[in-house]
Amino acid sequence: MLKDFIKAEKLSEEELKGRLEEERSHLFSLQMKIKDAKLPVMVIFEGWNAAGKGEVIGRVIRSIDPRFFRVATMDRQPSEDEKRYPFLYRFVKEIPEAGKFRFFDTCWMEEVVEGMIGESIDEDEYKKRVHSINVMERQLCDNGYLVIKFFFHISKKEQKKRLEKLKSSKDTKWRVDREDLFQNKNYDRFLDTYERYLEDTNGSRAPWYIIDAKDWKRAELQVLGFLNRGIDIALTNQKMNVPILQNTFPMEKLPKLSEIPLKDKSLSEEEYRSELDRLQKELKELGNRLYRKKIPVIIAYEGWDAAGKGGNIKRITQALDPRDFVVEPIASPEPHEKARHYLWRFWTRLPKTGHITIFDRTWYGRVMVERLEGFCSENDWQRAYNEINEFEKELADWGAVIIKFWVQIDKDTQLARFNDRQNTPEKQWKITDEDWRNREKWDLYETAIDEMIEKTSTAFAPWHILESVDKKYARIKALQTVIDEIKKRL
Amino acid sequence: MLKDFIKAEKLSEEELKGRLEEERSHLFSLQMKIKDAKLPVMVIFEGWNAAGKGEVIGRVIRSIDPRFFRVATMDRQPSEDEKRYPFLYRFVKEIPEAGKFRFFDTCWMEEVVEGMIGESIDEDEYKKRVHSINVMERQLCDNGYLVIKFFFHISKKEQKKRLEKLKSSKDTKWRVDREDLFQNKNYDRFLDTYERYLEDTNGSRAPWYIIDAKDWKRAELQVLGFLNRGIDIALTNQKMNVPILQNTFPMEKLPKLSEIPLKDKSLSEEEYRSELDRLQKELKELGNRLYRKKIPVIIAYEGWDAAGKGGNIKRITQALDPRDFVVEPIASPEPHEKARHYLWRFWTRLPKTGHITIFDRTWYGRVMVERLEGFCSENDWQRAYNEINEFEKELADWGAVIIKFWVQIDKDTQLARFNDRQNTPEKQWKITDEDWRNREKWDLYETAIDEMIEKTSTAFAPWHILESVDKKYARIKALQTVIDEIKKRL
Repeated sequence: MLKDFIKAEKLSEEELKGRLEEERSHLFSLQMKIKDAKLPVMVIFEGWNAAGKGEVIGRVIRSIDPRFFRVATMDRQPSEDEKRYPFLYRFVKEIPEAGKFRFFDTCWMEEVVEGMIGESIDEDEYKKRVHSINVMERQLCDNGYLVIKFFFHISKKEQKKRLEKLKSSKDTKWRVDREDLFQNKNYDRFLDTYERYLEDTNGSRAPWYIIDAKDWKRAELQVLGFLNRGIDIALTNQKMNVPILQNTFPMEKLPKLSEIPLKDKSLSEEEYRSELDRLQKELKELGNRLYRKKIPVIIAYEGWDAAGKGGNIKRITQALDPRDFVVEPIASPEPHEKARHYLWRFWTRLPKTGHITIFDRTWYGRVMVERLEGFCSENDWQRAYNEINEFEKELADWGAVIIKFWVQIDKDTQLARFNDRQNTPEKQWKITDEDWRNREKWDLYETAIDEMIEKTSTAFAPWHILESVDKKYARIKALQTVIDEIKKRL
Repeated sequence: MLKDFIKAEKLSEEELKGRLEEERSHLFSLQMKIKDAKLPVMVIFEGWNAAGKGEVIGRVIRSIDPRFFRVATMDRQPSEDEKRYPFLYRFVKEIPEAGKFRFFDTCWMEEVVEGMIGESIDEDEYKKRVHSINVMERQLCDNGYLVIKFFFHISKKEQKKRLEKLKSSKDTKWRVDREDLFQNKNYDRFLDTYERYLEDTNGSRAPWYIIDAKDWKRAELQVLGFLNRGIDIALTNQKMNVPILQNTFPMEKLPKLSEIPLKDKSLSEEEYRSELDRLQKELKELGNRLYRKKIPVIIAYEGWDAAGKGGNIKRITQALDPRDFVVEPIASPEPHEKARHYLWRFWTRLPKTGHITIFDRTWYGRVMVERLEGFCSENDWQRAYNEINEFEKELADWGAVIIKFWVQIDKDTQLARFNDRQNTPEKQWKITDEDWRNREKWDLYETAIDEMIEKTSTAFAPWHILESVDKKYARIKALQTVIDEIKKRL
């Protein structure tokens, strides 16, 4: 998690200031909602020494009324008296009450990692403690707690620089102790131990958020962002009596559908022809290499009705050897499919190594049509974001290239295409009453799709938007994306 | 789990026959309920070679209509073709549909353990697979599957005997292959690897049930018992939309309250005096040793109103050094307690090492009064059995001696004592309207208590029944139990 760590978004000072103000005032408005909803919020800050945990806690609490929070500053090691209780005791004592925040300046992680490094905790004791911590965090969450865990990450170089700066002034010298210097010297050993602990305790009830702590203001912005999103979700889930599952995977940020410019995304017929020819030749060649290298490829298409999925898929398959690929059109599940786990019909349609499967509509039906038509419960589709990310992670770890396309058009374009289909006898089979009914729910769908893209654009399987008001443009972009993603793997 | 394995109950042939018939006909009646409830039931059989998995599957399915089940006999290793898919693929393909049974004759465990022994799976791959398996089992359960996992356990000697018997007849010789002989020769290596895998995949959504497979009929009875109980619980939970949490801890079986004889459990005044004196002296001496050895002791009292808890506790504390113990009377939670995880007020009342805490009423209020008075949701108290077992396991692992008493009387005895309290001015403070109201709910309480004792009598913290129609008898038994349990630890 630290090793494949994604750096914070780059923002100008101007943008940063604006976003910070937004998040601070959102947190300010959330404190009363937390109180009313009786939601206890436990926020754990862990990370490298001198990473700025204390400073950021100091900044975050400025947005909260002092009656609604307390900071628990935990010693790195238990006192002699605390050692006479179970190791969790001194932390459990400090858990927040309903409706309030409790910020932990280090918690059960630090004691364990220091114990491992100092060899006072052996392998068996480590496993026992990790198990106890996982049980405790799960129990807290099951009992209505929101548990948010931050790890403040800085590089060895940055840590050294900070420690030296602190040492250089007589006002701050006292803040650097032997443990800090020891940690910097043994940075790599600590890195391995932190990394292991983070992986061992990264559950979807209480996942880790890694904070790029190189800059305090940016660190504060990240913390506020995760905290506010976490509380928003927890308040919603609480109403629906759904467990608060958080995302445990690294994410990529994509724009909302309404923010995607469609207008200038077009190609002339001439450009299109020459690009199409060039890219299809390239893909053909790559297809052969994939086959020889036994890499499986999964291409998933979702998009508005009449967005042009079919034609888009055709431009991909034209370039492939028919023995190597399969297109799976996904309609409503059949009875024997409906009788099983909703991902079963996709598990059983996976490509073999060296093969390509193109899904024309996908498992994302769960969080679109099944959500909106009430074909599954709220609990089901809320849980599905995490389940789908887990499914795709399994495929990515297996070695699959996963390419997910959202084919985007605007509402007017859809209307024009619907009318065209209606009025053209040879296209009439393509338009049904259901298409018109779905169109009426455009806004509901748009909300669901924005949420889907936000929650499932993982680093290992991000969404790609295909702007398809000009279908030619979308086709070329799809080919180019498929080629790029395959090349990354070869 | 295999190393601290508990052998099957000893039963006479007569008893065995009766119990088998009962369980078989219960399973027979469950198959239609499963169908109606659309519950998919996945039953996984793993374990030692020649442990009799196939034979027991053969016996179990006799109670089920062939339309409602299928047996998936999985090869120990994937075929060349199956190797071209994610390793879970060949198993996921076989999951049952709603309303039906699927019995797996070995599943994802066997491939992983053999891979570890044969070194085709290294440490990293092992961890990855265990993670994938845990995710899959959790997803199945979250999506309404009942997943029951059996491990068939036999000793090295027993396995050898069986393999030799099979080899000795030409009709069965073919059933013994090189892998079987290899496993018996390397029994201890397999034992360690099985043990590790069992621990790594023992979640409360899909825990392991270890089957003492020395005798087929007894193995069948154990399998039927776990299967039937599992289905009963799953059907109840499904109605309440509660996840199917199963027990992951080794249990001790106790009788139902109605089966506990109370009549002959009495002592003469003389016997009582001399025993009390002797045992209190012994406990006093043990108390000092506990203090020096820094062992913490937790004594938990629950029981009917007017069962005699107070007097019983007094006989224990009379023997202890007042500096070493504390009695915690537990009433309804105060507002600041109610605002936290329901176990918090017990966490914060734990004894230090070397000290004794006696709880007069306990965390079991969650599954008695809070359940019956609706102070928590059904989801809350259903989940609490597992949470409480986890809590007590944490304390046991810390090194605490945990002694749980249920003080038992019958309904008539309670009435007599209530009337006595009512009619004796100096006892009137002991009886309230609430006591009378609770008494009206005797039968509801009895059901809840039976369930509580069944689900929380773990091997590390079993319940002890104190028959208290004669309070003298109960006091002596309590002292003796405390002494026995402490001695076990010293």
